[in-house]
Amino acid sequence: MDSLFRFSALAEKMQPSPIRELFRVIQQPGMISFAGGLPDPDTFPVEAFASCADVLERDGRTVLQYGASEGYPPLREAIVEMMIGRLGYHPQPEELLVTSGSQQAVDLIARALLDPGDVVVVEAPTYPGTLHCLRNAGANFTTIPTDGDGMRVDLLPGVIAASERATGKRPKLIYTVPDFSNPSGACMSLERRQQLIELATELAIPVFEDDPYGRLRFSGQPVPSLKSLAGNAPVVIYASSFSKVLAPGVRVAWTVAAPELIRAMVLMRQGEDLCTSTVTQALVAEYCRRGLLEEHLHHIVTTYARKSRAMQAALESHLPDGAASWREPEGGFFFWLELADGDSRSLFERAVEAGVAFVPGGAFYPDPDEQVGDVLSGDAFARLCFTFADDAAIDEGCRRLSGAMSAR
Amino acid sequence: MDSLFRFSALAEKMQPSPIRELFRVIQQPGMISFAGGLPDPDTFPVEAFASCADVLERDGRTVLQYGASEGYPPLREAIVEMMIGRLGYHPQPEELLVTSGSQQAVDLIARALLDPGDVVVVEAPTYPGTLHCLRNAGANFTTIPTDGDGMRVDLLPGVIAASERATGKRPKLIYTVPDFSNPSGACMSLERRQQLIELATELAIPVFEDDPYGRLRFSGQPVPSLKSLAGNAPVVIYASSFSKVLAPGVRVAWTVAAPELIRAMVLMRQGEDLCTSTVTQALVAEYCRRGLLEEHLHHIVTTYARKSRAMQAALESHLPDGAASWREPEGGFFFWLELADGDSRSLFERAVEAGVAFVPGGAFYPDPDEQVGDVLSGDAFARLCFTFADDAAIDEGCRRLSGAMSAR
Repeated sequence: MDSLFRFSALAEKMQPSPIRELFRVIQQPGMISFAGGLPDPDTFPVEAFASCADVLERDGRTVLQYGASEGYPPLREAIVEMMIGRLGYHPQPEELLVTSGSQQAVDLIARALLDPGDVVVVEAPTYPGTLHCLRNAGANFTTIPTDGDGMRVDLLPGVIAASERATGKRPKLIYTVPDFSNPSGACMSLERRQQLIELATELAIPVFEDDPYGRLRFSGQPVPSLKSLAGNAPVVIYASSFSKVLAPGVRVAWTVAAPELIRAMVLMRQGEDLCTSTVTQALVAEYCRRGLLEEHLHHIVTTYARKSRAMQAALESHLPDGAASWREPEGGFFFWLELADGDSRSLFERAVEAGVAFVPGGAFYPDPDEQVGDVLSGDAFARLCFTFADDAAIDEGCRRLSGAMSAR
Repeated sequence: MDSLFRFSALAEKMQPSPIRELFRVIQQPGMISFAGGLPDPDTFPVEAFASCADVLERDGRTVLQYGASEGYPPLREAIVEMMIGRLGYHPQPEELLVTSGSQQAVDLIARALLDPGDVVVVEAPTYPGTLHCLRNAGANFTTIPTDGDGMRVDLLPGVIAASERATGKRPKLIYTVPDFSNPSGACMSLERRQQLIELATELAIPVFEDDPYGRLRFSGQPVPSLKSLAGNAPVVIYASSFSKVLAPGVRVAWTVAAPELIRAMVLMRQGEDLCTSTVTQALVAEYCRRGLLEEHLHHIVTTYARKSRAMQAALESHLPDGAASWREPEGGFFFWLELADGDSRSLFERAVEAGVAFVPGGAFYPDPDEQVGDVLSGDAFARLCFTFADDAAIDEGCRRLSGAMSAR
């Protein structure tokens, strides 16, 4: 029988996110997972966060009512306060929007800026959630290679010119995770950041700076955010989130951008979900107001530094000589291994058999088989998340991975 | 200077929601508002809800982590349990999706089913949030008149045939609020419900049953939901919400629909906001688990029955003879006044001067000036919300409204 539903063109083309499919495969007892980019649940400030529920009683009549699409005022104040350092200036109210995760920021910006067939410049590799979201909006992608210092900004003019020649139109947006990229862990150098802002301004293409990990640095020197380098110039759209610094379950994030873009996002949003849960916004605001976030950040940065060192040590001691190369991350959530045999898909299968999971590199490329510039295809890489597993599991997981590498 | 942003075609066409604009106008000290469709904050179960925060401590490691796009399992169980009566059958897991307000259900369904230019059949008058959302998806509208018994289902075949002739394609969706419609308060009769399901099945057009008010009946006989009449046939897509029965600030709602539609909604959603805040989902689940919702429902139905009677009495005693006619609602949030002089826009201005606000009827029509069948244009109506104001304000507001009516 034919379906009753006549799906939209975009829905017809939609593919399940490859990462979500993979999570199904690895849900087996005893599996050690380096796959999901998840915070360590043992770090969650369960008691402190629950104690903030006082606010539900104190401000209940407001908190339980409909809230403004722009965000709950006490949370907006807490965010502005917290962001002055990272932004380098005091954002105006009309530059700020609270969203339900920064995934929603990507979604709202896609809806505000993209018509089907429009082109977005993404780093290769990049965050698959963004690829999934932009695909839902009908976007096409052009990729720009990255290395250990992040986006190869020197190649940007050529990449954009080639895309213009091929499609007849200028890309609408440049997407980047400059601090501790998901998946590569790379941090864009200051010189490249300055160059990116210059080029983007010249080419009149806004840059979306997705910054979930910026405050999770445990070694090396901080680099100013793109937004702080650009000040309130509209060329940088900045988004960050409480997901990685507090807890993903709150689904609270924020965007700082030019007022005309924020206005368009708010209008889209009024038809999408009206506002982020005022209940969680109030809990997060109270958590910040009590000064608990800064304390907690110190705790998780210390924990993740230890786990990162544990994974570095485990990879060094267990992996077969020459089987993989990587750069030790200075922050964030991930190790990004380049595999000597260039075959992360078959390694994944053997690894799952051996009881350890990671995400094969192809998931982070719009086209997994494409070589990007002089960079290898996605299949040459493996993303390992070091934040979720405990120290013993990190060691044992790397031992199993080594077994899988040797077993081919 | 030209804008840096090249907005999408849909964003370029976007208009601020007329209701949101109106809310700006009426925020004046001393204003009595019958405008917003807001629950009475005095009914919010502030203490009981805050006490459920135990769950944040008990299940914190799970609750603070990323959750499934389909919803938090204990909440899904609570919803199924609660819905068996209203749905008349036990929905399967693959038929259920938790959303961030039922506004998001409208949005996800629009994205799954509608291409720009597709036609949706809506009642006239209808909920403006849905119009705003569907407009964002590029939908066009064809309207079907309503009367005190809801949608004029007998006119549906003609309306659809005319739309097909005009546009060359069949409408993709029929949208209805059968129980205590926003704005008209009307409840669709059983006969019309049966006829609607038959016709929709025959025409192969799914019906979206938006049911935020169904459990808020305080007089008359309950009518079975469309979904319970259709069983698990895919022709009815059912959505309801905790916004009106518990608190809008939680942003928790749910959809029951055919598995293939739920799947498409989940995929869209993974690129939109991943999942609804697990924190609020857990709080709401705990609230239901403790049996507090049923208790609370009893309390608000009693309160709203009293307020509805208060508005009925105030309108009867204050309004000038023959100035307006209406039907006393049997549930929901609204009185829907037909104005003898047919000019709700100028009444609105005089009413605001007199210190009382309502929503002029035009806001509830895709085209406020259009006459729908033999029904008057939107300008002949005024929507008065009776749930938000307290009893004294209801009386005084109607007195002021009467003054505004006489002042012309």
